[in-house]
Amino acid sequence: MPSYTAIVTLLAVAFYFFLATRVAVARGKFNIRLPATTGHPDFERVFRVHQNTLEWMPTFLVPLWLCAIYLNDIAAAVLGLVWIGGRVLYFTGYSKGVEKRLPGFFIQSAACALLFVCALAGIVMRWSGG
Amino acid sequence: MPSYTAIVTLLAVAFYFFLATRVAVARGKFNIRLPATTGHPDFERVFRVHQNTLEWMPTFLVPLWLCAIYLNDIAAAVLGLVWIGGRVLYFTGYSKGVEKRLPGFFIQSAACALLFVCALAGIVMRWSGG
Amino acid sequence: MPSYTAIVTLLAVAFYFFLATRVAVARGKFNIRLPATTGHPDFERVFRVHQNTLEWMPTFLVPLWLCAIYLNDIAAAVLGLVWIGGRVLYFTGYSKGVEKRLPGFFIQSAACALLFVCALAGIVMRWSGG
Repeated sequence: MPSYTAIVTLLAVAFYFFLATRVAVARGKFNIRLPATTGHPDFERVFRVHQNTLEWMPTFLVPLWLCAIYLNDIAAAVLGLVWIGGRVLYFTGYSKGVEKRLPGFFIQSAACALLFVCALAGIVMRWSGG
Repeated sequence: MPSYTAIVTLLAVAFYFFLATRVAVARGKFNIRLPATTGHPDFERVFRVHQNTLEWMPTFLVPLWLCAIYLNDIAAAVLGLVWIGGRVLYFTGYSKGVEKRLPGFFIQSAACALLFVCALAGIVMRWSGG
Repeated sequence: MPSYTAIVTLLAVAFYFFLATRVAVARGKFNIRLPATTGHPDFERVFRVHQNTLEWMPTFLVPLWLCAIYLNDIAAAVLGLVWIGGRVLYFTGYSKGVEKRLPGFFIQSAACALLFVCALAGIVMRWSGG
């Protein structure tokens, strides 16, 4: 089994959990009581960082593991690290303002696109006896 | 590893990504500024299509892969294609009106139910030495 | 492949699907029309139970399976059952009131933390030739 990708996946989950704790902190700071998810723009941006990262989980994890299994463990792990880096930038940017989310967003999108292409290539190569 | 299911999973992720782009387009069309997720019913329905597809991802991907691994790759892949077809109908229907989401919704639900039963059968058969 | 963890994962997905049906029932009871997701606190709490369980899916499923594959199937399956138990308590508690969600929340958090540590230990042991 692909061990490098496994470690990078745990790191991605740990960062995703960290984002959930940021939502909890922002709830306290801006006094947004559960079960509400709106009420102050600064809270809503942090909430959206966490939600958007969740929304991208299938788009990230599926190609990541198909790339690791069908093509190459180290290639998948490196692109996984790039995705985490993009997500960190997205979080720090979006926390400051809506427009500042874009550089990190494009980095993580590019990592997912490359993982998708690598996964597809790996599966097709296996079919053609590669 | 189950290659047909791997390709179908990539297709499902690609369609899911396409839905995310529809949300972005609807944001522009109805001028719903981030981080808001409400403000116009036509936007909110497209937003819900994407969210509901995310909500069903565990219910789809887990039985899909357990079916592929423990029972049969091709059976899982075919049911996966049915799920994607149901989701396409759900998207085109729900975009027009709330009630028109139902045919696609039931098709994708039935595909998940069958995948669940197949996965369960596969695991139990392996236990009983099948 | 880890069969005990596979069965427990199906059980977790079945419970998650049950939560989705509770949201649908609460929609009818409090007359919250789609695509709205707000409008009555009793509906919103049930909606949040389902959403929060979805939000935790990556944090649960990834360590669960890495623990099952890299360390031990039965250990992963037992911790998976503890997670489901915590989620049942979280659902019954949160349905009554916001504060009553906490015991179940902490049980499922502890299960995820242990799964994370077990997964990490399993991967590191494999590297060191264990």
